[in-house]
Amino acid sequence: MAQIKRILIANRGEIAVRIIRGCKELGIETISIYSTADKESLHVALADYSICVGPGAVQDSYLNLERIMSAAVALAVDAIHPGYGFLSENSKFAQMCEECNIAFIGPASNSIKLMGNKSTAREIMAANNVPVIPGSDGIVETPEEANKIAEIIGFPVIVKASLGGGGKGMRIINSSDEMEKFIDQARAEASNAFGDASIYIEKYITTSKHIEFQILADKYGNVVHLNDRECSIQRNNQKVLEEAPASCLDDELRARMGHTAVEAAKAIGYINAGTIEFLVDENNNFYFMEMNTRIQVEHPITEMITGVDLIKQQIKIAEGEHLPFIQEDIKIHGHAIECRINAEDPDNNFTPCAGLIKELHLPGGKGVRIDSHIYQNYKIPLYYDSMICKLITWGDNREEAISKMNMALSEVIIEDIKTNVSLLQKIIEHPDFLVGNIDTKFLNKIIR
Amino acid sequence: MAQIKRILIANRGEIAVRIIRGCKELGIETISIYSTADKESLHVALADYSICVGPGAVQDSYLNLERIMSAAVALAVDAIHPGYGFLSENSKFAQMCEECNIAFIGPASNSIKLMGNKSTAREIMAANNVPVIPGSDGIVETPEEANKIAEIIGFPVIVKASLGGGGKGMRIINSSDEMEKFIDQARAEASNAFGDASIYIEKYITTSKHIEFQILADKYGNVVHLNDRECSIQRNNQKVLEEAPASCLDDELRARMGHTAVEAAKAIGYINAGTIEFLVDENNNFYFMEMNTRIQVEHPITEMITGVDLIKQQIKIAEGEHLPFIQEDIKIHGHAIECRINAEDPDNNFTPCAGLIKELHLPGGKGVRIDSHIYQNYKIPLYYDSMICKLITWGDNREEAISKMNMALSEVIIEDIKTNVSLLQKIIEHPDFLVGNIDTKFLNKIIR
Repeated sequence: MAQIKRILIANRGEIAVRIIRGCKELGIETISIYSTADKESLHVALADYSICVGPGAVQDSYLNLERIMSAAVALAVDAIHPGYGFLSENSKFAQMCEECNIAFIGPASNSIKLMGNKSTAREIMAANNVPVIPGSDGIVETPEEANKIAEIIGFPVIVKASLGGGGKGMRIINSSDEMEKFIDQARAEASNAFGDASIYIEKYITTSKHIEFQILADKYGNVVHLNDRECSIQRNNQKVLEEAPASCLDDELRARMGHTAVEAAKAIGYINAGTIEFLVDENNNFYFMEMNTRIQVEHPITEMITGVDLIKQQIKIAEGEHLPFIQEDIKIHGHAIECRINAEDPDNNFTPCAGLIKELHLPGGKGVRIDSHIYQNYKIPLYYDSMICKLITWGDNREEAISKMNMALSEVIIEDIKTNVSLLQKIIEHPDFLVGNIDTKFLNKIIR
Repeated sequence: MAQIKRILIANRGEIAVRIIRGCKELGIETISIYSTADKESLHVALADYSICVGPGAVQDSYLNLERIMSAAVALAVDAIHPGYGFLSENSKFAQMCEECNIAFIGPASNSIKLMGNKSTAREIMAANNVPVIPGSDGIVETPEEANKIAEIIGFPVIVKASLGGGGKGMRIINSSDEMEKFIDQARAEASNAFGDASIYIEKYITTSKHIEFQILADKYGNVVHLNDRECSIQRNNQKVLEEAPASCLDDELRARMGHTAVEAAKAIGYINAGTIEFLVDENNNFYFMEMNTRIQVEHPITEMITGVDLIKQQIKIAEGEHLPFIQEDIKIHGHAIECRINAEDPDNNFTPCAGLIKELHLPGGKGVRIDSHIYQNYKIPLYYDSMICKLITWGDNREEAISKMNMALSEVIIEDIKTNVSLLQKIIEHPDFLVGNIDTKFLNKIIR
């Protein structure tokens, strides 16, 4: 076992703060990187050391592999935690760490690469008895080929970029007439966004839920899942509110999906924390969607219901420790909800808003958890994601977690920044939400 | 069952905020009272309505029974929550509520009265097989009588005011020569502080721990305990840091003390939340010290390890609900620690400090709970208790709760207010604390 003594955190915002807190608990030194736009950011203030890696634009700082690796080598770190977003699923970055003998706190670069290609991931999973949505075997070359598959699986179908993510390079196709045009559009978008025009097709499932399973795997082949998260409430493929456990799963289905998630991770020899995303249809059929090879934004709700500290576990796995539990040890306690508070204007198509936080009050007390990097007089920079705070509540049951979230949201003051708090309140108070009647189209009921 | 729809909170600061949050979750309207010095206080901003009851001095506002009762009647509240301190253990206030048909969220006025007289409480407990410290049967009239008892139980003894609390009217006496002088002093102090010169004597136990049990009792004779809190770390009889559960108790002793606590509450037909304080000597003998007939400052650590929301339970009990659990349902999950952050100057005998909070950052994240009423630009008034924040951490075990507290304390920024944070850090890092070697004299090792 190689004890980690110094970690560079290749990220910013709340997740950098979250990782620093975990490191402090473990007695590990932390080094924050930052852009010139983030000089006053909390992750810089809280780290033991910090180093500027470039200007505000992400390509020149948080996405700049060379500068970050130079900093890591110069400062003699033992490990890098990539957080989520930025370089967290960049296999080249993970590989550079491996070559520099710096522990990448995440899976092997090869796992990132395999799962990063969505059509490859699909093929691997199908080959390992993980249910996938009916569709093409690997990538599709021509509209004719796509139409042949669509005839077999039935319209509507969805075309997706192999290297896709975040909704880019995706088109829903309702008939063979539309195939050529939409494939061309998807290819162009994919090529532009990911530098690769490969696409594949799947049956488009009209009504579905997004349910994901958190897994943890050590270096010795031990894999456990930490149950599920319900993440159907999305806007433009961005999660808005998540909860754990998913209220639509019964024990039998939960166990079956959890087992499948563990098998999926084992199929690729996965190590560290990861998430298997499933799509669940109206008849409770579930299908592998993709695997996220990093810590997720919504990891706190899993921590709340299982008690497991996922960041500390990630570090311990990277150090070569065995998982301290087996599947049977993982229990669900109560219910947790996470609201992503974004600095964005709900009256203007949720355009991100930057600016000075003149007044700030966030709730506290029993069952309320705040993961955030903001403070009063903090100036939200223009360059980055609009999420400024994760507000998490925990209750004995879903009803209590909801009433606590209602209470907590009512306390939030973030002046004069426009935020989505009113949208979150509308979700939390919606009759369909209250009875758990949610799917990926839920937000259409609220946002017009 | 009489559903409570509107509660007046006869308190201020963090506990008023805590109660408001509980009420919001239950959908109950809240009315805050405030003094002119507290106009900008958080409990005023968060309540549905608020009413000024007088100037800053406590006698004219938060201790002014008539004004508070007038407000409660005029605003047609169903109930009053007294919090802790102020009028929370004033039996006259509870009685006025009873007479006005307003639910006092706490025990019957008679229970407050019985337990408020410490010598009476002692007698009742002794009569009900609750172990008490050897001493006088009721009050002591003369030094000669006291010396006779002291000869039987052995020196040192302690003289205490019958209506005492907070260390006032107490004297430790090592020999019969000192008896007359110290009894006179104690009487004078007691008369001055409580308007009653009655005193009683007990054997003074040199090395002891302060361990208390939280109990909940409904109106139907059901009483449960929610386990213990270790509160030995005190300065001038004021608790500084508390933890739950007490690491010095084994299962057998915990069960025996818990059972005794339940029996103590039953002996007086107690209703609502209360605390039985025990003194535990070096040989694990435990003795009833006193009963606190209100919610305690340190209630959050019990909430963290049991999951029970004590404030919501208090309200439900006052509404006439049955306890939703029996003793066997109450389990201990992990370990919790509370640090009381006080605005006081550790270099100047902990003199309370008032003033403007120019900059504020409090920690957050997994296992960190903040119960506080402060915010950036809040001006701490001169008039009230110096406690401005309760920082609570939870971990799987004591070690994790401690490392989390260490991390959390290191993040606290409260500028330019002098606080006891450095003292709390010294406690948390002390080798004796780390191994749980603490008693009521522990702080003498740190404060010179």
